[in-house]
Amino acid sequence: MNLRALGEDGLLEELLRTLPRTAAVVLGAGDDCALVKSGKRGALDLLKTDCLVEGIHFSKDSRPELVGWKAMARPLSDFAAMSGLPQFALVTLIVPSQKTLKWVKQIYRGIEKAARTFGVAVVGGETSNIRGPAVISVSLTGIVETKRWVGRGGGKANDDLYVTGRLGGSLRGRHLKFVPRIVESRWLTKNFRIHAMMDLSDGLGADLPRLARASGVGFEVDQAALPLNRGCTAAQAISDGEDYELLFALSPRHSARLLGSWRRKFPKLLLTRIGKLNSKFEIRNSKFPGGYVHFKQR
Amino acid sequence: MNLRALGEDGLLEELLRTLPRTAAVVLGAGDDCALVKSGKRGALDLLKTDCLVEGIHFSKDSRPELVGWKAMARPLSDFAAMSGLPQFALVTLIVPSQKTLKWVKQIYRGIEKAARTFGVAVVGGETSNIRGPAVISVSLTGIVETKRWVGRGGGKANDDLYVTGRLGGSLRGRHLKFVPRIVESRWLTKNFRIHAMMDLSDGLGADLPRLARASGVGFEVDQAALPLNRGCTAAQAISDGEDYELLFALSPRHSARLLGSWRRKFPKLLLTRIGKLNSKFEIRNSKFPGGYVHFKQR
Repeated sequence: MNLRALGEDGLLEELLRTLPRTAAVVLGAGDDCALVKSGKRGALDLLKTDCLVEGIHFSKDSRPELVGWKAMARPLSDFAAMSGLPQFALVTLIVPSQKTLKWVKQIYRGIEKAARTFGVAVVGGETSNIRGPAVISVSLTGIVETKRWVGRGGGKANDDLYVTGRLGGSLRGRHLKFVPRIVESRWLTKNFRIHAMMDLSDGLGADLPRLARASGVGFEVDQAALPLNRGCTAAQAISDGEDYELLFALSPRHSARLLGSWRRKFPKLLLTRIGKLNSKFEIRNSKFPGGYVHFKQR
Repeated sequence: MNLRALGEDGLLEELLRTLPRTAAVVLGAGDDCALVKSGKRGALDLLKTDCLVEGIHFSKDSRPELVGWKAMARPLSDFAAMSGLPQFALVTLIVPSQKTLKWVKQIYRGIEKAARTFGVAVVGGETSNIRGPAVISVSLTGIVETKRWVGRGGGKANDDLYVTGRLGGSLRGRHLKFVPRIVESRWLTKNFRIHAMMDLSDGLGADLPRLARASGVGFEVDQAALPLNRGCTAAQAISDGEDYELLFALSPRHSARLLGSWRRKFPKLLLTRIGKLNSKFEIRNSKFPGGYVHFKQR
């Protein structure tokens, strides 16, 4: 079996099946962040790591300050997905000797900017040489109140499905500048009982089936309702990926109150009901075009 | 200024000078692990990330299970350096598509073996493609009692300097199989007041000056006393690096008790007094040959 055929989900499942767990692990690999018991009153620890690889997630021509921003913003988006409060970051920078100090400093400037924006302290750094493409890896730790964390697995049949912002066309530039939805996510769990939530990194077409599968339910999406970025088709909104918007499920009883108070609180950010969860659980939604799958991509 | 000329210490200093810190950070970048306030009674959180790059830290021919072991054992060794208890790990595996699933699984088997040995739960995994060498990055979190953590900066003039095990020649194979000195380190801080400690990753010649500088003192080493691995010269013991033994400083008042009780507790592991700290603080100990410096290495 070769890596490309297996795809990233398959590879991770394969690898993580036998990993050592302990009683302190509430959620291991498979959700947006890991969730562990920390000995803190009323709170759990969240852990997440994420990497950017030159030639895969950014190009030689990408502005390094934006690449640094994205390297920090991606795991922050995973914190948003679980309604976590990020606190500390470790940064690994693996760079070929040909890169200039200026390039490295600009990467760090972007990392710092995102860290400051969300109150994160960068507490450790590692650098290494590589005879190949640059790699930037960020590990984040933080906390979430025991009563406020949201995973992918709590969705119920008949829940309304919502997405923040607009979808599609991210690779034209937004994927390097997006703002993780931490403020919005914290507000949501403070004011509503969100059943399931995740961030849209691989595209609605790949991510929604993950949420549905984790919740043991099916879904239906009203394609005509999808909030599209300018110039995008519904197919692009489903497949492009890298939207970093929130996708969440909420009882329809609270839909009217949500839409009203959201509009007052976040007048500049769209919130759209795109469909609902249902009881027709199928492993494959074959009519739903897939998002980006790393090892299958050429 | 180019990266090779700057060296890893210089690059990190350059990059980390302006990083955002918060009041919760006890020790940021610059020690073996970051140390942060966690809201736990009597304990602090430790954070560490470390990576292995193919072609730099291991070769295409290295046995993948040993590479996996080393990827986890290196940050564990940093926990030993501060007398921490590791708890949770995040693993990032960046592999070119040409690698086989078998190779990846063996890497993970090594990671798991080291994790189980030290009671660590692997709670998250990420995989990515790369058009270049494989990279394995492990981030570790854990705790240490507020009264038991040891940094590099607490050494005092006249302290005795000790190393565990033997030094030199690690690249002949031991660098892939070493056992992090967590058990020994926990025993040390339970029974003695260790002033300063670190693990020897870049070689005594590079690491001891770091400990001395952090403590604001000088040092003298009795080269004839260095515990050498078979077939190694003192120069190799000083410069080879990758020993992953503990180097620590202790008041000479406790030396006799330490040596006696160590021999009873760890009869198979050498403990050697190699010299002492003194008050002659110099930034450069030019007569002391340096260890491995990443960006200067060809």
